[in-house]
Amino acid sequence: MSHDNRAWEVVSAHIESAILDGSLVIGQSLPSERELAAQLGVGRAAVREAIHALVAQGVLTSSVGPRGGTRVAALRTEALTKFLRLQVALANFPVADITEVRVALERTTVTAACRDVTEESLARIRAALDRMAEVDDPEEFNRLDTDFHVLVARAGNNALATDMTIAIRESLRSPILNAEETMPDWAHFRVGLLSQHEAVYAALADRDVARAIAAMEAHIRHSYAILPMDQASA
Amino acid sequence: MSHDNRAWEVVSAHIESAILDGSLVIGQSLPSERELAAQLGVGRAAVREAIHALVAQGVLTSSVGPRGGTRVAALRTEALTKFLRLQVALANFPVADITEVRVALERTTVTAACRDVTEESLARIRAALDRMAEVDDPEEFNRLDTDFHVLVARAGNNALATDMTIAIRESLRSPILNAEETMPDWAHFRVGLLSQHEAVYAALADRDVARAIAAMEAHIRHSYAILPMDQASA
Repeated sequence: MSHDNRAWEVVSAHIESAILDGSLVIGQSLPSERELAAQLGVGRAAVREAIHALVAQGVLTSSVGPRGGTRVAALRTEALTKFLRLQVALANFPVADITEVRVALERTTVTAACRDVTEESLARIRAALDRMAEVDDPEEFNRLDTDFHVLVARAGNNALATDMTIAIRESLRSPILNAEETMPDWAHFRVGLLSQHEAVYAALADRDVARAIAAMEAHIRHSYAILPMDQASA
Repeated sequence: MSHDNRAWEVVSAHIESAILDGSLVIGQSLPSERELAAQLGVGRAAVREAIHALVAQGVLTSSVGPRGGTRVAALRTEALTKFLRLQVALANFPVADITEVRVALERTTVTAACRDVTEESLARIRAALDRMAEVDDPEEFNRLDTDFHVLVARAGNNALATDMTIAIRESLRSPILNAEETMPDWAHFRVGLLSQHEAVYAALADRDVARAIAAMEAHIRHSYAILPMDQASA
């Protein structure tokens, strides 16, 4: 298998370099399997495997039909989220480390949100909070809680910070839900979460950066201090 | 190709779920190609393709020989760096966005470094700075500059923040170098960088968190304000 490995890695490295140096850009079609194989002196099977690997990473998309083919993808958040979820699960990063990174990223996203928030994006965040207030079930509450953090991040125009925030938050969806489902005092914890979210919302509605950062940081630290997650999470 | 796609995606999703729910952990061997194919009702080619895709993502490692096989990998930083470099190149994140994320992550890493730094890790950072002071060539200087940020991050025990910091810094290596090579006043800029690095080092040597954060943030913001990078970087 090692010879075969090397051939598809040559193809994969070639495509990645072309993306890194800007000669392949989003939406652009790749040469055909046959052309790539001839150009790189490898078999068509190796080309196919490299392409599948890059599709799996969200770097390329493949479609069939008359206008089909393999193109450079623009699927950013989804690919990053999928990748980080796996990395977090594999790495068993300590909860304390994840907490610090979430605080750092969400300071950034809430700062951008205070700068860029509109009446529309504020209304969407308000609606997520109103739904949370009506929900007792931990699973549905957890989904809305994730939505809240994603909506706040999206209210600011910093796509990289937003993507990373979403990826980290999504990677914690299962461990947070498991912790919420097993905690003895979910009803009390839930009320605390609601009021912390309201504090973030109020500061954001006032475009008050310092208060929004303080409220977000207090909320994240409070949650991790109380949630009964393993020291090695995920 | 769409039918074939679906088969390898079934295998890939199966392995990813096993990692996410903890039933496959780092170092563990996968069942054989034949067993996986039978278990999931797909062809062996589909299993092989899914494995190659996960190897390309750094999730699995494959080796040959008597003790070889396919195992769950622990190759975290390298895989994350490679992935983020591609994502940053593809996405053309604006420099302003990357700057904010770097500030957020390096605030976190330098805070952890002030808490955890040892005489050994401090000596390594000192040595990188001493080498920078002797180097004029932008390419070598840039390499040492990356080293400095990586060493500071590694001096603190927050693996997730360190991995992300390294990945972002590595993804900027080429655009920063290109900018440094074309700027009219490199000699002057270089002297500024040296003194900013010294300020971070001095605060870190004193374990002074507030000063270290301020020095790091000023350094990153100053660099991006001056470097002639495209508004859409990478």
